[in-house]
Amino acid sequence: MNTPGNVYLVPTVLSPDALFSIPAYVTVIVQRLSVFYVENERTARRYLKALDRNINIDALQLLIMNENQPPDVTIGRKLLLEGKDIGILSEAGCPAIADPGHLVVQMAHSIDARIIPMIGPNSMLLALMASGMNGQNFQFVGYLPVKGPERIKTIRELETTSERKQQTQLFIEAPYRNNQLLKDIVDNCKDGTRVCVAADITAPTEYIKTKTVKEWKKQLPDLHKRPAIFLIQAG
Amino acid sequence: MNTPGNVYLVPTVLSPDALFSIPAYVTVIVQRLSVFYVENERTARRYLKALDRNINIDALQLLIMNENQPPDVTIGRKLLLEGKDIGILSEAGCPAIADPGHLVVQMAHSIDARIIPMIGPNSMLLALMASGMNGQNFQFVGYLPVKGPERIKTIRELETTSERKQQTQLFIEAPYRNNQLLKDIVDNCKDGTRVCVAADITAPTEYIKTKTVKEWKKQLPDLHKRPAIFLIQAG
Repeated sequence: MNTPGNVYLVPTVLSPDALFSIPAYVTVIVQRLSVFYVENERTARRYLKALDRNINIDALQLLIMNENQPPDVTIGRKLLLEGKDIGILSEAGCPAIADPGHLVVQMAHSIDARIIPMIGPNSMLLALMASGMNGQNFQFVGYLPVKGPERIKTIRELETTSERKQQTQLFIEAPYRNNQLLKDIVDNCKDGTRVCVAADITAPTEYIKTKTVKEWKKQLPDLHKRPAIFLIQAG
Repeated sequence: MNTPGNVYLVPTVLSPDALFSIPAYVTVIVQRLSVFYVENERTARRYLKALDRNINIDALQLLIMNENQPPDVTIGRKLLLEGKDIGILSEAGCPAIADPGHLVVQMAHSIDARIIPMIGPNSMLLALMASGMNGQNFQFVGYLPVKGPERIKTIRELETTSERKQQTQLFIEAPYRNNQLLKDIVDNCKDGTRVCVAADITAPTEYIKTKTVKEWKKQLPDLHKRPAIFLIQAG
C-alpha cells in the first residue's frame, strides 16, 4: 500500500487585508496543493489568489463543506489513499475547529494519513492571550442560548464555574447580538467579575479590553456586527 | 496625560529551528522594541538574534518573569505610562497563556494600554485543529494530578464530562511522565473514547494521532521527554 497523502490545515485571515498574519510557509505549501475542502468557493479563491497571484485558481478542485453540506469525505479518502495531499480552509482563521473540517480530519486519522496543522490567526487564542486571564485552565463553550431566561442562567453558571475552578470562560455570539450579550453579562454578573471583550481581531479597528463588571457599567462599546469574542473570569 | 505605550505579545518557536512558524511581521515589531518581559534571558536573546541578527541584544532591557519570580509590573507600568512599548516573550509559543505574562497584561489593562496579541504557534490550538475533535466546545485543564488514585479519578471525570457535554478535554503532563499518562488513559477510559496524542509539534518528529482507546491498546508510541498534549473525546 502507498503512503497516504498529507492533510494540510491551511489558516486564513480573520479580517480582510490582514495577510501579515499568515506565515510565509503557508503560501509555499498552498502552491503545492490542488485539492481543498472549503466553506465558500468564492472567498477561498480570492484568498488563495491573494497568497500567490500565480496560482491557477481554475485548475483547483474545491470540495464544499458548510453547515448545510457536510464534507464528502469519500472523495478525500480516495485522493489521500492515492497519495494526493489535500488542504482544508475555513472562512476565518484556523480550520477544523469551528467548521466541518474536523470531519475530514477524522477520516484522515482513520486511514493513518498525516495531518499537519499550520500556524495562523485564531480569535479564541488571540483573545485569551490578550485578556490577561487564566490560560492554564479555560473553557470555550461556543454560542450562548438565544432565549432570555436560559441565556441568563447560562451566563450565571459560567460565572459560578469560573469562580469555583478559577477557570476562564470563553464564548461567542452572532455579531448582531453582541451588544445585547455584553449588556446581559454586565446586568447579571458580580461587580468584581472581569470581562474581556475582543473585537475585530487583527483589523485596524481591533478592540481588546478587560474590565470589571463595575467598570464596564460606566460605558459599553458598540460591538454591533463586529466579530467578537467574550471572556469572563470571576473571583 | 500621554497615551500609554503598547504591549506586544511576541510569539516564539515551539521547537528549535522552526522559525518558519513565526510570521514576518513579528520581526518587524520586535525590531522596534527595547524592553521585554522574558522567562529566560539566554533563550530570549538567542531567539531575538535568530529573528534578526542585527538586533543589538546588549542594548535590550530584559525583565525576568518565571514560576519563582513574578514579573515586576511596576517597571512595566512606569515605562508604558512614559509612552514606551514593551514586549512579552515566553519560553515556547504564544505568551501570556501558560506563563506569568498574563500579570503584565492585567496591569496594562488597568492603565488602558493597548495590548496586541501577535500570531504564532500554540501547541493547544494546533493539537485541537489536528485532533478532529469538537472545537466548538472544549476545555483545557493544564496538568493532571500526579498521584495515582486522584489522577485516575480526574481522568475518569474528564471522560464523563466529555461524554455529557460532547466536550473535548485537553491536558498536559511533565514530559518525563507522558508515557505513564497515556497508559493511565488507556487503562481507565472506555474502549470507544477517542484519544489524540500530539507531540513535538512543528518539529521534524511531529507526531499527531487520534485513535480510540481500543486501537491505542494495540501499541503505544514512545513519548518520553517529548513535549506533548493529550486530548480526549468520549461518546
